[in-house]
Amino acid sequence: MAAFTFDALGVPIVQAPLGGGASTPALAAAVSGAGGLGFLAAGYKPLDAVRADLEELRALLPDGVPFGINAFAPPGRGAGGADVAAYAATLQGEAERTGAALGTPRWDDDRYAEKLDLLCEAQVPVVSFTFGCPPAGDVERLQRAGVAVWVTVTTPDEGVAASAAGADAVIVQGVEAGGHRGGFDDAAPGELGLLALLQLVRAAVGDRLPLVATGGIATGRAVAGVLASGAVAAQLGTAFMLCPEAATAPAHRDAIASGRAPTALTRAFTGRTARGIVNRFMREHSADAPSAYPEVHHLTAPVRTAARRRDDADGFHLWAGQAYNLAEAVPAAQLVVGLAEEARTALAAATRRLDSAG
Amino acid sequence: MAAFTFDALGVPIVQAPLGGGASTPALAAAVSGAGGLGFLAAGYKPLDAVRADLEELRALLPDGVPFGINAFAPPGRGAGGADVAAYAATLQGEAERTGAALGTPRWDDDRYAEKLDLLCEAQVPVVSFTFGCPPAGDVERLQRAGVAVWVTVTTPDEGVAASAAGADAVIVQGVEAGGHRGGFDDAAPGELGLLALLQLVRAAVGDRLPLVATGGIATGRAVAGVLASGAVAAQLGTAFMLCPEAATAPAHRDAIASGRAPTALTRAFTGRTARGIVNRFMREHSADAPSAYPEVHHLTAPVRTAARRRDDADGFHLWAGQAYNLAEAVPAAQLVVGLAEEARTALAAATRRLDSAG
Repeated sequence: MAAFTFDALGVPIVQAPLGGGASTPALAAAVSGAGGLGFLAAGYKPLDAVRADLEELRALLPDGVPFGINAFAPPGRGAGGADVAAYAATLQGEAERTGAALGTPRWDDDRYAEKLDLLCEAQVPVVSFTFGCPPAGDVERLQRAGVAVWVTVTTPDEGVAASAAGADAVIVQGVEAGGHRGGFDDAAPGELGLLALLQLVRAAVGDRLPLVATGGIATGRAVAGVLASGAVAAQLGTAFMLCPEAATAPAHRDAIASGRAPTALTRAFTGRTARGIVNRFMREHSADAPSAYPEVHHLTAPVRTAARRRDDADGFHLWAGQAYNLAEAVPAAQLVVGLAEEARTALAAATRRLDSAG
Repeated sequence: MAAFTFDALGVPIVQAPLGGGASTPALAAAVSGAGGLGFLAAGYKPLDAVRADLEELRALLPDGVPFGINAFAPPGRGAGGADVAAYAATLQGEAERTGAALGTPRWDDDRYAEKLDLLCEAQVPVVSFTFGCPPAGDVERLQRAGVAVWVTVTTPDEGVAASAAGADAVIVQGVEAGGHRGGFDDAAPGELGLLALLQLVRAAVGDRLPLVATGGIATGRAVAGVLASGAVAAQLGTAFMLCPEAATAPAHRDAIASGRAPTALTRAFTGRTARGIVNRFMREHSADAPSAYPEVHHLTAPVRTAARRRDDADGFHLWAGQAYNLAEAVPAAQLVVGLAEEARTALAAATRRLDSAG
């Protein structure tokens, strides 16, 4: 099987994996079918569900059309049990409000080793990692199985580490991005804006490593902007969350479609820094939340699920990037084609602008 | 006199005004002379010094070559005297360390009305404002005098307000930018990354208002990136601070040239949120600093001046944007020409990339 290369894409647009709910095989199929690169999310999911997603996506796509799947690198050890217990004590009101019991905080590695086996066996065209860089041996094993390996970075140093581990590409995640900061260390979650980060990572890793840009990209102009800034492709997440193919929860969908609140970074929901639309849960709990992932994720999961089921947008994580107001409720294939067309127009206009000057 | 238009620029590159020290007529002349738009800083400066800068710059430039000057819009009233007094009490160590007495905190409007008179009389081609939007009447008065008026914005709402006041252009300042956040309200200093902000401001103000992009732009690739994202020009600040024409203090220059520390936002130096390279003063005082500009500016000015004179990089503000590591010590004209050339190459490469896909 030929390994994935970016030249295989009809459109240099990648759909972010949208772990934790919005991702579906139908969404990934629509994006890949339109010439972009659709993504599944393996994180948080049982092995059987990952396997089922892969089978469903493959059934929807012609042979040889590339797609990707995202997995979590094994997280480091976070705060101790005492900090998590103290945080749990502050969350009793959430349990009462939703009628759900708090979950049991525990550390786990999201079954990293078994997922690695599965993704090698399945010969997924692209596997991207968040929360860290897998060991060079694991990168090599995936590559021997025909899998291209991408690593999410939020600092130049992480870019250098991913390059040294043999990554085929890095996802350069600006601070604008919705959902979790994908970098290696939650104690230093990376605060660089996308454009600054693209330049700094490029300077740190040299000219050859492909950079996929992500964070706050919602329009074809911004797609053009990151391509001009040296990215080989643009990865969009929130922009796809209103698509009919996405499984975005109704209250989350409404918040993205009509929200006026700003976004902010918080550890309140999972114990790891992530960006969401500011809501009551964030306002009340962000100051108390420790850096303790996935312990806090497991602790709050039942109350967040209950709030989501009740359509209570103030009670669960409304992951969204800084440009979420610009998301549109259109089919994913139409979005991909429209973004590429708008990017083409934007690059032509910028070229004219630069030529007319001087 | 014909009013300024962006078509008058040979190169769509604007030099940020670099208020507070680094700005010089020689730097502005070099940038404007190379086809960009050089800027002077009127903020913090006595009227006579502003007048002298204008005369010096005009003597250096051929007639009709455009340039700009930055002024502060009148600041709102910040925290009360009690907060400033409490902060002053925490700064005694700085006074002892430097041998300088703390300054007297006071509110002033940087002689806004007199500077407005001067800039109208001088028929400066472009006046940009930070810290707020002047009243529509003042905008109109400047425009009647042949002056193009730009307003710095950090949120889409500020863009709408500037447009409503009749601004000829807005400077869209991403959170990556060094120095002061230039928006209207220090209580909500604007945390949007440049690429997200460009898209959101464009959506809010419509297609006609010219947007000048600033924040973390250090390379021709990023210049190309913001042009592709819909900006009419890129404004760079830190990128010019190592130029021989800049009056950057030696310790500040060294910190930019060889610094490894990250940047962060702080009110510690002036009472208004600004981005600088993290140093001892920031680490020790950021948590205590109230939002009280210009009171805190006047309070800390003598100890900062003393530290700067002693080349103590830990004792004064090291304003710098997130991409400061990429600044180069080259003459300003060479930098402008090189950035434009690199931007041209980057746009051509992005266009090829988009054409080869699909």
